[in-house]
Amino acid sequence: MRSVCVVGLGLIGGSVLRAAAAAGHVTWGATASEDDARAAARDGYDVVDLAAALERAVVQDALVVVAVPLPAVENVLRALPEGVRLTDVVSVKGPVADLVARVAPHARYVGGHPMAGTSRSGWDAGRADLFRDAAWVVTAEDGTDLDVLSDVVGLALAAGAHVVPTTAAEHDAAVARISHLPHVLAAVLASVGADGGPLALALAAGSFGDGTRVAGSRPELVLAMCEGNRAALLDAVDDALGRLGAARGSLASTGGLAKTVEAGHAARLELERRPDLTDTTVDLTSPGALRALRDLGSRGGRVVALNGSTALARTP
Amino acid sequence: MRSVCVVGLGLIGGSVLRAAAAAGHVTWGATASEDDARAAARDGYDVVDLAAALERAVVQDALVVVAVPLPAVENVLRALPEGVRLTDVVSVKGPVADLVARVAPHARYVGGHPMAGTSRSGWDAGRADLFRDAAWVVTAEDGTDLDVLSDVVGLALAAGAHVVPTTAAEHDAAVARISHLPHVLAAVLASVGADGGPLALALAAGSFGDGTRVAGSRPELVLAMCEGNRAALLDAVDDALGRLGAARGSLASTGGLAKTVEAGHAARLELERRPDLTDTTVDLTSPGALRALRDLGSRGGRVVALNGSTALARTP
Repeated sequence: MRSVCVVGLGLIGGSVLRAAAAAGHVTWGATASEDDARAAARDGYDVVDLAAALERAVVQDALVVVAVPLPAVENVLRALPEGVRLTDVVSVKGPVADLVARVAPHARYVGGHPMAGTSRSGWDAGRADLFRDAAWVVTAEDGTDLDVLSDVVGLALAAGAHVVPTTAAEHDAAVARISHLPHVLAAVLASVGADGGPLALALAAGSFGDGTRVAGSRPELVLAMCEGNRAALLDAVDDALGRLGAARGSLASTGGLAKTVEAGHAARLELERRPDLTDTTVDLTSPGALRALRDLGSRGGRVVALNGSTALARTP
Repeated sequence: MRSVCVVGLGLIGGSVLRAAAAAGHVTWGATASEDDARAAARDGYDVVDLAAALERAVVQDALVVVAVPLPAVENVLRALPEGVRLTDVVSVKGPVADLVARVAPHARYVGGHPMAGTSRSGWDAGRADLFRDAAWVVTAEDGTDLDVLSDVVGLALAAGAHVVPTTAAEHDAAVARISHLPHVLAAVLASVGADGGPLALALAAGSFGDGTRVAGSRPELVLAMCEGNRAALLDAVDDALGRLGAARGSLASTGGLAKTVEAGHAARLELERRPDLTDTTVDLTSPGALRALRDLGSRGGRVVALNGSTALARTP
């Protein structure tokens, strides 16, 4: 099993370290947070300084997992030895890939994003089963190193997740729509509701409560996530503005909202639909493996196991 | 206790009839739906035709509760005898008040709106405790008949609800913000998410699920509700468009969303806040009673009991 070096021991990094260790990987970690370092060491994990951690990664040909916030990624990349196996768990993929290309083009990089909760933070919030049954996005670009991709898929599966392969651009576009836009709309709805004063809030019931729930998240986490995905989020906001503007126009002119409401209803039913899944495999040594993986992800499929160099997948 | 005549025996009307009967009121009902009439009679309720129901209402000086969909209200109003005590349970108040002024200006009308679920319909979906702990809006305009207002407050309290007094215009503006706009935004979000294809839906988690939940409601119910409150909903949609456009502009120019996200967070905390409530009373025979009731509602207060002609209230 590939050794795993985790840089950054907050909620996600700390959970990756625990999950990898629990699955039998040799693991060690590094963090700039003295609190997290102390807490992880207290819990029996091997925590060293960044330089020592990366040196050991070279010696053991380990997979380095960068689990620091986006603004801190560049400094970690600058410290990387040549040719290291590299992944990350940052919630946007295009900006990280750009940073790697600029700062550490020698790294054997495969992007990753486990879709797990972020409402708490720090080592003590982490746990080994945080990723159980979660989607873990792995980027499969043309030219991606399939050997490292197998490492990342193996780590994700070891953590109990299933793997959704896609490109950085498609990942960022998708999460803008289903994760970042919901936070923006929830904030807008909460503000418009509160502008109605105590009477409006006194009458608020289920629909307002559901629609504003994520506005209760810590603003600094929401901002880091949304602002880090600026380009893709702008596209998603523009789509929402277009659809909301069309609803406004229709309501003002004909008084009707059927198109808006019926399209939204059909979309929600599509989300609730649980299609039958078919088993399939992808040979990770074949020349078409990367394209096959991306096709799988774009159809809503997922990798659920690795058997040697064969990925076992389920697809609608 | 005032006798109660309910016209329309669907989910809401059927629940009003049951709740009033359970609280000891003499009750009877009428409905254009043969299914609802048969089901209500089967359950032991007194169901007669509309003309007979209204005639009996005159004889007994009963409170007539109009519980038909907005498009059917006018026909019921045209059948009303002179000077009848009248309320309704339609989810918009301005359009109903306008209809009453035009078609039945002789009626002693006080608008009502119990804020209870509408995801199912028909007599069989109703129950006597549907309104327990719900807000029941009662309109208190200048010139409102305080005697009939007491009837409506008494009926709402007997059904287990608390009463939020306000004007038709303020009610419609408030529900546009906290009930109708959430449906429009949920529809928009669901559509933008589904436009991301199977990959996006495969990655969708809590925030998208919460934000699109009410898009699963039956489109015809959502449309009747939203389209019936056209003017106020237009204002709410414009506020949302303005806030979303400002977020778009800020994200595009500076890359920042702090203003949007922090305002939404503060608004959500305001919704979750449970302020200490103070007991107060309103003398329903005093000249300032209607203004005192409206002030109570606009502060987020509610009437929780009637003691003779004194309303006992709780206010933040």
